[in-house]
Formats: sequence, structure tokens, C-alpha cells
Amino acid sequence: MIRRLLIVNRGEIALRIVRAAQESGLVSIVAHSEADTDTLAVQRADEAVCIGPAQAAKSYLNIPAIIEAAKACQADAVHPGYGFLSESADFAQAVKEAGMVFIGPDAEIIARMGDKAMARQTAIEAGVPVVPGSPHAVKGLDDALTVVESVGFPLLIKAAAGGGGRGIRVAEDRDALAKQLPLAQAEAQASFGDGRVYLERFISRARHIEVQVLGDGKRAVHFFERECSLQRRRQKVFEEAPSPALDSATRKALCESAVALAEHVGYVGAGTLEYLFDDATGEFFFIEMNTRIQVEHPVTEMVTGFDLVREMIRLACGQPLRMAQEDIALKGWAIEMRINAEDPDRDFFPSPGKVETLIWPAGPGIRIDSGLYEGYKMPPFYDSLVAKLIVWDEDRESALKRAGRALDEFHLEGFSTTASLHRRLVEDPAVKEGAFDTTFLERWLAEPASNHSNVKEVIDEQ
Amino acid sequence: MIRRLLIVNRGEIALRIVRAAQESGLVSIVAHSEADTDTLAVQRADEAVCIGPAQAAKSYLNIPAIIEAAKACQADAVHPGYGFLSESADFAQAVKEAGMVFIGPDAEIIARMGDKAMARQTAIEAGVPVVPGSPHAVKGLDDALTVVESVGFPLLIKAAAGGGGRGIRVAEDRDALAKQLPLAQAEAQASFGDGRVYLERFISRARHIEVQVLGDGKRAVHFFERECSLQRRRQKVFEEAPSPALDSATRKALCESAVALAEHVGYVGAGTLEYLFDDATGEFFFIEMNTRIQVEHPVTEMVTGFDLVREMIRLACGQPLRMAQEDIALKGWAIEMRINAEDPDRDFFPSPGKVETLIWPAGPGIRIDSGLYEGYKMPPFYDSLVAKLIVWDEDRESALKRAGRALDEFHLEGFSTTASLHRRLVEDPAVKEGAFDTTFLERWLAEPASNHSNVKEVIDEQ
Repeated sequence: MIRRLLIVNRGEIALRIVRAAQESGLVSIVAHSEADTDTLAVQRADEAVCIGPAQAAKSYLNIPAIIEAAKACQADAVHPGYGFLSESADFAQAVKEAGMVFIGPDAEIIARMGDKAMARQTAIEAGVPVVPGSPHAVKGLDDALTVVESVGFPLLIKAAAGGGGRGIRVAEDRDALAKQLPLAQAEAQASFGDGRVYLERFISRARHIEVQVLGDGKRAVHFFERECSLQRRRQKVFEEAPSPALDSATRKALCESAVALAEHVGYVGAGTLEYLFDDATGEFFFIEMNTRIQVEHPVTEMVTGFDLVREMIRLACGQPLRMAQEDIALKGWAIEMRINAEDPDRDFFPSPGKVETLIWPAGPGIRIDSGLYEGYKMPPFYDSLVAKLIVWDEDRESALKRAGRALDEFHLEGFSTTASLHRRLVEDPAVKEGAFDTTFLERWLAEPASNHSNVKEVIDEQ
Repeated sequence: MIRRLLIVNRGEIALRIVRAAQESGLVSIVAHSEADTDTLAVQRADEAVCIGPAQAAKSYLNIPAIIEAAKACQADAVHPGYGFLSESADFAQAVKEAGMVFIGPDAEIIARMGDKAMARQTAIEAGVPVVPGSPHAVKGLDDALTVVESVGFPLLIKAAAGGGGRGIRVAEDRDALAKQLPLAQAEAQASFGDGRVYLERFISRARHIEVQVLGDGKRAVHFFERECSLQRRRQKVFEEAPSPALDSATRKALCESAVALAEHVGYVGAGTLEYLFDDATGEFFFIEMNTRIQVEHPVTEMVTGFDLVREMIRLACGQPLRMAQEDIALKGWAIEMRINAEDPDRDFFPSPGKVETLIWPAGPGIRIDSGLYEGYKMPPFYDSLVAKLIVWDEDRESALKRAGRALDEFHLEGFSTTASLHRRLVEDPAVKEGAFDTTFLERWLAEPASNHSNVKEVIDEQ
């Protein structure tokens, strides 16, 4: 058993882990940068240790400094939170070699699931569907048409050397493929010095749905899914559990595929399997696995009643899973709204500042995970997430109403946040219907706001 | 259907009802005294109306002023909260006669259940056990010994005209009864001018356990029980759901008796049936019914997932119960700690003041119901309850740990509160074991604090 847990992170997640540590009877120690001496996590922790200057490379990403601090404060375990070193196999290995428990899976699993090609191959081995695509670069049209038999249309022609959305063309049918393929190959050669292209199914109405799992190496269980389709610049903005898109048969198949993959690799700890869900066909495809706790884990905690961070600690200490699959049931609906210090009216320009006045929403069904307090001055060095406002209610319609009520109660002076965006989102007819995909939010933001309220008025009048 | 709800109360419960109203799509209007213009409930409500000076008799208890205000602001319903006019049949009648919906049962039911003798008689009619006692005043020893056959020893000799703990003697056996009875009769005559005395079973180890019910006039359901044995001067201090004292058969019998009584009177709305539970014999006895929402209702909401205040509004509008008994299940454990502005180190002397600094506990399983905010100055006119800290966790042991963690996080500067008392209580071995009755807390407070920690150390060493 462990007694002293070093938490190598900041902000709300550091505080979240302090809480779990204290409830687990552990001494919580927050490792923080010089810019983070006055965070709420540091104040609430049993102890704190400074690991370096504000820049993350010199503190939150500085493995030697962290290991040294961990030894100095006699920590016997390390929790990496999310981001920073949470998916660094090197860090997990360094913690282990220093004789401490890493609260996460082994370095080998982190490395294996962190490599997209290896993760895809592992999913295929475990019988989990992946986005259909050519197993190798296609040569001419004949080769491509052979691939089409399994991949179907529409499809993406993706440059092997591309990435981040670059070097991608869409082909809707055979004629388009015949025309686009040579162009794509020439462009890939010109842009990346590598003319190889792959084909992959284009899912035009994809939703981002992910499954939370816990494993003890022998056995894994799932805690159902989260839907995270409302994204801006590939950053999740608004998450919920369960997903409004799944029927119960699809939910079961999706969640069981996640357990199969976790058991296939002998997974230990908390992990999330991310999928694309094709709203048009009802198919789901594994895309990647995150081998750490996620920002949006509270929605799962709210609908299942389990404390995932406490479970992570138990599992990392070698304890077996406490629950069978049938002990885990969905109850009600939970929504997490990420409150970022950004101004939605100025293209989400970062707006760090000092908290002048702060009154949180409260009462039934409200959970706040945040390091903010009156007088706190946000350092400008880190990401803009300052609070997670999580609501639970009996069903989705009630949860959206409660979210609106909670946002109306939220009173923060000192800087702009994305709370105003959420206030509009929870009233949006498409959001209310759960009718969205991963492209929805950016299109919605590009429209004049008056469009949204017009739609609402039309609905109200009916 | 109603559209505008007047909330005639203050403090945390006014805010609680504002939240339920807003989530139900109603316009919330807070009726407040001149001393309460800057409460959080007033700030969060859609509208507010002043009903008179600070003294409750001139505002929160002033029926004509309230009815006038309700008409002036075009309210079509009135929620009385708890305390003040919440159990006034006259007020319920006045609201009805003014053409508005009273969020509670009819005046006749309030009157019937508010009269202890009538409530007892009603319980007997419904087949619900009441504390065994003589049905009429006893005359001499022979008459008393006939009663003893059904009541048993030990018993209380209670002056018919007594009350509030006055005019009560205990008799452990026949000899004591023979000696005490004439003394009690003489004392009753001398003290109250009425020599009549009754006999009643003395339950030496009584726990206070109550059952939450909802009824729609035709049907009632229960939401299981709350245990409220930790009391000081008959005021509840710490409540939990479920009760640690009940086995499942007793729980079922207790809760079904509450439903039987609620159905017997055709109850409409939310009500609580209070019982004494005899820890020595496992028997329970109905003592009274509260025909309103109770302070400790959140623990029931936390373990069942239902919003009782929203349900009250629906039922008062004539809607049928939405749920069957089998839809209501217990999940986990919830504890409510009443935070009063009182100094536990100075015999609970009231300590109203201004909130200088305030950081609430937060994170998983925490609910705060409170009107406090930084800068708020408590008026000295009302009761000392300033916050309810409610925690939920998977089981009782985890909930107590979480309560300790939450109390450690709670940071209030400006005045003393009873939070420090709760911090000691949640670590107490007897509290951890659930081994207490209604006399426990006063005995515990009378002991030197060092005794409690000694006990804890002895336990820790084992």
C-alpha cells in the first residue's frame, strides 16, 4: 500500500486528485511550478513542493526535477493527471525505476496505445472495428478500386505524410476517385516529398463518442459512454453521458468492444477508448485510446456513482477491480460545460485575469471542479480551462434546464469566460434534440447569433 | 398550470425553491422582509417583493401582507418553505381563497396532522404503531396497572397539561409506579391546575427516524427514511439517509406504514412522518407528521435522485404522481451537516456577522444549499442556519470520509460556525458505528473533547 501521493499537475485536476487522495486516506502532495504557489490545489493539499519555473518544460514536463522532488518528499506514488506527462511512457518508466507507483498503466501499454498505427492494429486484433481504409498505399486507379470494395464511398484520399487535416481530398464516387487520385498523389509529392496516399472511409456525420473503462490486468469493465461531439478546433467544449445518439443495442456493442480491447492488452487503471460514430449508418469505429484520466470523467462519475480517481489509485496499487460489470448502471443524465478564460465574442481570445467576484451555482445536481477563488490571479502560462460546471438530472431535458439555471447563477467578475457560449448552447434547438456532429459547433459559431435565437423563437411559437 | 410562484421564505430554502421554480419553467418571486433585501435568494429570483419589516410577525408571518403582495405581483401559486407559515392551515386557506395554488396539502389536512392527538388517532386508524400509552387519564394504581399490561415498563407518567418536557416522571417497575403516581398527580395539580396524568412507554434508547412521502390524493409513495438522531435541544444537527439502524425488513415495514398513513388521509404533496425507533427492540412508533418540505430533504434527494421540491409543485397543481414505488431505489449514502452561525466553543452562542472570505468545498459528491456569499451580512433577526453541507458517497464509511474532506476544504471567515463541531463528529467512533440515539449528542457535548479523541486513539491502536 502507498501512503504519500505526489500529484504532478495543476488547476482543477490537481485539486480533483487531492480530494481523491484525502478521501483514500493518503497524504496529498502537489508538485507545482513557481507560477502556481497560490493555487487552490496547493492550499488544499496536505503538502506542496515546487518543481521549477513557470514554463512547463522546466517544471510540469521536467522528469528529472519531478523525480528528484518525489524522492525529497518521500512520495511513494505519483499521479500525472491529464495533459503534461500523463501519457509519457518515459515518465511512467522513470517513476517506476525510482521505486514509486505510477498511477496509470505500465510504460509499455502507454507506448503501445500512444502509437496510432499500433493502437489501430491492436484494435483489429481484438476484433474492434476501426475506420475502414486501405492497409497500404494505393498505386493506380485499379488498385484503388479494389480497396473501394471494402471501404466504400464517400472516401478520403489521405497523404501518407500529411497530418493535422493537411493533404486530404474527398471522393464521392468512382468518377471523382479517378479524377482526384492522380491529383492527390502529385500534390502529396509536391507538398511532402512523398507521393504515397491511402484511402479511408469518409464519415460525413461523425460523432465523437468514447467509452470509459477500468482494468486490473485480468479483467476490465466499462462505465458506459460519453458524447463529446461539441468541439472547437478539436477541443471538447461540452460533454455528456450517456450519448443521445445511441440505442441500447449499439450502446452495448460499443461498450463491450471497449472492454474487449482493454482485456486484450491486459489494461491496468483508467482508460478511455475514443470512437467515431456514424450517425447515418449507426456504425462505430475505434480511433484511439487515452491511457489516463480525462477532463470529462465527472459526467461518468455522475451517472454511475463511482469515483474514478479513487479507483485508479486502488488499481495502480495492484488491487483487483471491486465491481463486476453488472454492478455498474446508468442513472440519469450528466453534462459537463468547460468554462475557459476566453472571450467568445472576440474569437475565443485568451482572457486570463484576477477573480474579483465569484459566486458558484449550487443546490441539487450541481458539481463544480475548479481551482478558482476570489482574489486568485490566473498565471498566463497555461491552458485556459478554469472550471468545469457539471450538472446531473433525471433525464437529458431536465439536465439541460438545470444547466441553464446553473449558468444563470454563475457570477464571475474579473475576466471573460465561455459560460456565455454555454448559456446559448443549452437553449439551442439542435443541442436540445441531440442533433449534432463534430462539425456542428464551428458551423454554429460561424453563424450570426441572431440565427440561433430566430430558430428558437420559431420553435417557441409552434 | 401555474406560471408565477411566490416564495414566502428566506435563507437557503428560499434559494432552493427559486432553483426548483426556474428548472420547472416558472417565474420565481421571493417575498422578503426589509432586512432581507440583499439575500442571494432575492438576487437569484426572477423578481422580489418586500412584505414588511424585519420582525417575522410583520413580514414572514403576516398573512394579509403576503396575500396582498401575492396579488400585486400576480402570483398564481405560493410556496411556504419550512418554518414560518408552512404549517399554518389559516395561511393555506387564505392562499386558496385568494384564488392561488398553495404548494402543500389542503388546510384541513394541515390542521388534522398538526394536532398531535388527532394525528395519533389517525395513525391508529391507519394501522400505524404509535407509542403505547393509556388512552385516557389514569385514576388510581389499579387503573394504572391495567394500562401497564399493554404499555409495559419502563413507562412515563405525563401530566395531561404538561408539555415541552415538563411534568414527566419515569417509573421503572410496579413499586416505582405505586410511589410516583400520586406524587405526579399532586405535582400536576399544583403546577398546571390539572391533576390528570397519562402513562406512556418510555423508550430509553430512541432514535429519530422519519419517512419522506409524496402523495397525489389517490396514491402515495415513500422515498425511504432519514435518520436525524443527532440533535441538540431538540434541533436536528446532522442527518443521514438511509438510517444505519434499520435492517431491510424493518425498513420495508416502516416505510410501508408511512405510505399507509399518507394514503389513509388522501395526502397531497410532500410530507414527512416522524417515528421513534427503539434500538433495543427494533420497534417503531409514529409520533407526528410534518406537512411541508423539511430542512433535511436533500439527503433523500441525494440517495434517490428525485427533486422533491419540483415534485411538490407538480402535485400541488393537481398532477398525479409520476413514479411508482418500484421506480424509487436507494443508491449510496448521504449526510447533511447543518452549518449554523453559532460558536460551539461558547455554548452555541449565536454569532451572526459578515462573510469576509468564503470558499466552499466542491468536487464529487458535494452539494451546498446556502445563501451565503462574500460580503453578505447576516441580519440578527432570524434563525442561525446559514448553510447545509450535504455529501453523497457509495456507502456510509466513504460518505463520512468525504464529509471530513469537505469540512477541511470549507473556508469561512467573518463569524464562527458549527462546522468545527461536525469535523469532530465525523471522526467520532460512535458516529462512525452509527451507535447513537437522540440523547447522544448532548451527552457527547457535555464530555470534555479530550475524551472523544482518547476513544479514537484507543480504537486506532487496536
